Amino acid sequence: MRSLIKHHAGPELQLVDRPVPEPGPRDVLIRVTHAGICGTDRHIWEWDAWAASRIPVGIVTGHEFVGTIVKVGSAVTRYQPGLRVSAEGHISPGVGYNARTGNAHIADGMKILGVDRDGCFAEYVCVPEENVWPVHERIPDKVAAVLDPLGNAVHTVMSANVSAKTVLITGVGIIGLMAVTVAKAAGASRIFVTDVNPARLALAKKLGATEAYNTYVPPPPREPSGRAVTPTSSTPDWIKDLRKATRGDGPDVLLEMSGHPAAINDGFAALRMGGTAALLGIPSMPFTFDLTNHIVFKAATVLGINGRKMFETWYQMESLLLSGRLELDEIITHEVPMAEFAKGFRLMQSGEGIKIVMRIA
Amino acid sequence: MRSLIKHHAGPELQLVDRPVPEPGPRDVLIRVTHAGICGTDRHIWEWDAWAASRIPVGIVTGHEFVGTIVKVGSAVTRYQPGLRVSAEGHISPGVGYNARTGNAHIADGMKILGVDRDGCFAEYVCVPEENVWPVHERIPDKVAAVLDPLGNAVHTVMSANVSAKTVLITGVGIIGLMAVTVAKAAGASRIFVTDVNPARLALAKKLGATEAYNTYVPPPPREPSGRAVTPTSSTPDWIKDLRKATRGDGPDVLLEMSGHPAAINDGFAALRMGGTAALLGIPSMPFTFDLTNHIVFKAATVLGINGRKMFETWYQMESLLLSGRLELDEIITHEVPMAEFAKGFRLMQSGEGIKIVMRIA
Amino acid sequence: MRSLIKHHAGPELQLVDRPVPEPGPRDVLIRVTHAGICGTDRHIWEWDAWAASRIPVGIVTGHEFVGTIVKVGSAVTRYQPGLRVSAEGHISPGVGYNARTGNAHIADGMKILGVDRDGCFAEYVCVPEENVWPVHERIPDKVAAVLDPLGNAVHTVMSANVSAKTVLITGVGIIGLMAVTVAKAAGASRIFVTDVNPARLALAKKLGATEAYNTYVPPPPREPSGRAVTPTSSTPDWIKDLRKATRGDGPDVLLEMSGHPAAINDGFAALRMGGTAALLGIPSMPFTFDLTNHIVFKAATVLGINGRKMFETWYQMESLLLSGRLELDEIITHEVPMAEFAKGFRLMQSGEGIKIVMRIA
Amino acid sequence: MRSLIKHHAGPELQLVDRPVPEPGPRDVLIRVTHAGICGTDRHIWEWDAWAASRIPVGIVTGHEFVGTIVKVGSAVTRYQPGLRVSAEGHISPGVGYNARTGNAHIADGMKILGVDRDGCFAEYVCVPEENVWPVHERIPDKVAAVLDPLGNAVHTVMSANVSAKTVLITGVGIIGLMAVTVAKAAGASRIFVTDVNPARLALAKKLGATEAYNTYVPPPPREPSGRAVTPTSSTPDWIKDLRKATRGDGPDVLLEMSGHPAAINDGFAALRMGGTAALLGIPSMPFTFDLTNHIVFKAATVLGINGRKMFETWYQMESLLLSGRLELDEIITHEVPMAEFAKGFRLMQSGEGIKIVMRIA
Repeated sequence: MRSLIKHHAGPELQLVDRPVPEPGPRDVLIRVTHAGICGTDRHIWEWDAWAASRIPVGIVTGHEFVGTIVKVGSAVTRYQPGLRVSAEGHISPGVGYNARTGNAHIADGMKILGVDRDGCFAEYVCVPEENVWPVHERIPDKVAAVLDPLGNAVHTVMSANVSAKTVLITGVGIIGLMAVTVAKAAGASRIFVTDVNPARLALAKKLGATEAYNTYVPPPPREPSGRAVTPTSSTPDWIKDLRKATRGDGPDVLLEMSGHPAAINDGFAALRMGGTAALLGIPSMPFTFDLTNHIVFKAATVLGINGRKMFETWYQMESLLLSGRLELDEIITHEVPMAEFAKGFRLMQSGEGIKIVMRIA
Repeated sequence: MRSLIKHHAGPELQLVDRPVPEPGPRDVLIRVTHAGICGTDRHIWEWDAWAASRIPVGIVTGHEFVGTIVKVGSAVTRYQPGLRVSAEGHISPGVGYNARTGNAHIADGMKILGVDRDGCFAEYVCVPEENVWPVHERIPDKVAAVLDPLGNAVHTVMSANVSAKTVLITGVGIIGLMAVTVAKAAGASRIFVTDVNPARLALAKKLGATEAYNTYVPPPPREPSGRAVTPTSSTPDWIKDLRKATRGDGPDVLLEMSGHPAAINDGFAALRMGGTAALLGIPSMPFTFDLTNHIVFKAATVLGINGRKMFETWYQMESLLLSGRLELDEIITHEVPMAEFAKGFRLMQSGEGIKIVMRIA
Repeated sequence: MRSLIKHHAGPELQLVDRPVPEPGPRDVLIRVTHAGICGTDRHIWEWDAWAASRIPVGIVTGHEFVGTIVKVGSAVTRYQPGLRVSAEGHISPGVGYNARTGNAHIADGMKILGVDRDGCFAEYVCVPEENVWPVHERIPDKVAAVLDPLGNAVHTVMSANVSAKTVLITGVGIIGLMAVTVAKAAGASRIFVTDVNPARLALAKKLGATEAYNTYVPPPPREPSGRAVTPTSSTPDWIKDLRKATRGDGPDVLLEMSGHPAAINDGFAALRMGGTAALLGIPSMPFTFDLTNHIVFKAATVLGINGRKMFETWYQMESLLLSGRLELDEIITHEVPMAEFAKGFRLMQSGEGIKIVMRIA
Repeated sequence: MRSLIKHHAGPELQLVDRPVPEPGPRDVLIRVTHAGICGTDRHIWEWDAWAASRIPVGIVTGHEFVGTIVKVGSAVTRYQPGLRVSAEGHISPGVGYNARTGNAHIADGMKILGVDRDGCFAEYVCVPEENVWPVHERIPDKVAAVLDPLGNAVHTVMSANVSAKTVLITGVGIIGLMAVTVAKAAGASRIFVTDVNPARLALAKKLGATEAYNTYVPPPPREPSGRAVTPTSSTPDWIKDLRKATRGDGPDVLLEMSGHPAAINDGFAALRMGGTAALLGIPSMPFTFDLTNHIVFKAATVLGINGRKMFETWYQMESLLLSGRLELDEIITHEVPMAEFAKGFRLMQSGEGIKIVMRIA
């Protein structure tokens, strides 16, 4: 089968031929038809420090996909060949507190498809039966291929409980844009976003954001050690505007999607006293954080978001998709055939594309 | 001042002249401009058993309104004359657990405007400072006049947490119709309603219901004692259709707005295992209820809803109104001048009108 | 192997010899050492209407036990022979909303050990790997044998969130008594109980109840149809006493463990406005219930409790057991060898024993 | 009246004679009998940077007390002279979201007794009627005098929901020690504490801690700027021990009571994946914090704790006190007459005393 593998300890991926895998007794074998390119795949493509420390050379990459079951292992009982399915990429160890209480995605011993074992950038992929997600007939393939990242957005939004609340989203990359349409569908009253990319800000407004603030400022000076200097305390104009729009209090909810220290600090500064912050963005290193004012005195509720709940989030996602309210067409900007995978990665790297889906079969 | 009072221990109300009340030290005096006619007012008008047992003859009726503060008591500190305001009609005793924890509406010793003391069907009304709700400038008078019943709908919907869930609303009278638009704005994925009134069902669909089921059936036979016979157990077709639309499970949430035993039993039968039911409708007497199957085995969460939270619900309501997503224009069907109050009550009684607002000033 | 089976469509069980079962690919085979006799087993023994409608003749009964894994199926990955284990008796279908969100115990298609398939009143029992619960070394066998009913009590108490609250438990049978010690360990401030059995009431006080009310009253008259007449509305003295002890409000939480209409009505009458009721007791038929006053006007939160969460409840149970605060010695009153099973059932039926454990191996 | 005032912009307080204040229309005048010395009072005594920036010279200090109402303002309706009361020290502005939803303690415009206006270190103090807390007859004066800090502990513990959970408390100063006995009474299964003070650690064990870890390590080197260097990543032995005691996972809940960056970082490192951290300790400045690993990847829920809820926390506190389970006798170590106030502050500063109560009347 054609497979996109990490062929060496360096950048890019290679399209090679591999034998079709044989499903274990509890696995299903899926013929992949469409697969999404994730930010994680880009890290693997670019072979950054994280990728070099985590990814085994030779692995088939990719973990977002849709396809059809073609074969089931001897002990499989739940599904039959012919079913159109996606799958959760976090593979549960089956034992331990988090694995057994709906949080397998943060369980000790959990493995990730396309990171710890062969993934879905191939004509076939094996996943354990319990990771299978039957896809509702009304959900088109290109959406079914990106349920994994959509699940990140849904898990963040639903954890923060945005219903009838004002929401600030800091950072409208792929997941941040998805969060705009998800938050709107999930009942956020008004949505405010920040970013430094005018095109993404414009798209956020199109998807339902009430205001989109461009927060670009010249980068702060850095100490010789390379660590960022604490942001100065003067309140930016956009925060003043945002407060005016929200009873003078600030938004009820912060969804942090950027991972940038300055955006995080501003986001917490903007959040109202007693508000809720859900943090999905991943700062690349520890930074100077004002725990006293941002969390303790603010009486904030802060939620770390990682992956998505298995399978509460998947059901929420299906419910939102069937509501007809999610607008994903302008977020999934390109479909490319698998043979043009390099183009797909370039579209993502250049920012010309947002979410890129590869047609595999 | 012109006042609409319960002038005798019998039906109807009378328009009379009364002295303008003097606010107590902690009260504000409000010039009423618009007032909504509530189902409670209709009970008082019709002088049914409940009204006869509760309402003091001579009282000024009404508790839903908007107006302008014209005078404040000597110990008032929070508001000034000139402010456009509505008010919560439940007057807190100020002491006791529920009064001091955001649930004054169910506090022991709580009094209700227009029921226990003079209400708002008059040119002026006094309310305690802490009951005042400043009305946002973007909310029009006719909506501001009905924040009280809208608050019932909002409290029901928000208590049940409908975000990204499927919702069944049994009974689309005034509050049920409001609940349709509120649930949609608050993020319900899909909304299903039942009623026996085709016009209300049609309006529910217009307001965003996915399906509207007419559940009219000939009334069940009654025992000589007058108590309703337990509904038979065969599953109605609409429940089968509803299950098909909801993964075979039934809806996640039931909002019970009818108070009819048959609708309640059907609503619980339809609810999915582990679902949530919020009950606002008021059965007129105890009835035969299958606690075992409807609550215990179903592992249901059931929420009794009474009034609205002071003042969490009011903030949620403001947030929803400012979102621009609530559609109230077709629910507030008529505005009548105070002098034509009898017409207002007739519109309500006949079902020709839904929510009726009186112009007072 | 020696097995206790339902040998005919009538009362009692029979001890017979059966072949040791062979585990399926995903099952483990467990050598049972101790098994608890459940109220469900008593229904099966007595062959009441429920049992006759549900239990296949020939089945091995029993679903509460502890033992040791002796063999594992070919596709089992999580456990090895030699491990001391108990198991959850609800066997998940693996598919569907509740099965995939931590509520397999109420999932459509769920099967129960000793009810729908062969159970643990035998020297060996097979259970799916995912139902296995490794037992902590500090938990003794006789306790490990009754984790299933203890889990009912824990699920009820934890669902109602009793921490720092006053609690009323109506009915102190086996699960009710367990609920007393569980509620105390879980942080209930004060616990009040009702029952009609003086010995159980005395034991409840020993286990930590602040007050134990004997609510025996002559049975209410019944209509010719056999349905119970609605209890009269005069407030019993014990409710007045209970209110005095709880700020005049009534208890924060009701744990209903009796299933008796009169106890349920009294429990709701006693509950404070805005309180929480968790219902585990199972009324044998629909009855006249005052939904208006008991739930709607009371603004109560009512939780139907069924089984126990898989596996949130099991972890809570382990945490409580390791706290050293649960007092189960006086609840598990008797251990009998398997050969004396009839004595075990008699001890239970007579009320001389409370929880009876059989030694199997 | 004798009053303890901040007499100059420098250290210590002075005992002076002042006129008895006259209650405003909505205030009550209370004859103070006992008052607790708070850490805040110590900051004011020592006149540190915070005190110098916040405290008006001439103010009567103190905010924790019990006494008797002796006079009520003209518009007061809820209480009468003769009632034994304490009071919440956060004075609500009455308007705005947090003030009207049970969170007046974090409301914009909120004022604090003994900080922003005259406090309780005097024979008489005035507080608004709505701040009054009637003290249950079974609660002794010395406990009633410290309900304010006990409320901090209760709010922290109850926010984190410790029932049936394992709990780590980092820092067992006054509030940390109170949190030990509160967490035990509120149903924590096992409690682990850290501190660098052997006497406090020993007392924590006496109050119910399962393990008390002395985490003293030589202070980390500091950069020339004075900012603490990020702690190294090797896991301390006590965390390894703690994990062993908690299924290998770490504790379910972290209650952070120290405000020290090293303790905070260690506390988060110890917390299990998906755990809850409630932060009451106040770091004196921003510090380098690993948001990525401590919150995002850990999928932690983090709660900033500030003051106590008005008045949910007060009711929880009363419920816990009436349970008879709180052990405060060894935490309230000294009672001194008001004339010996300097001794009281010295006992606190030296660490010889823990909680010090002054007898005023």
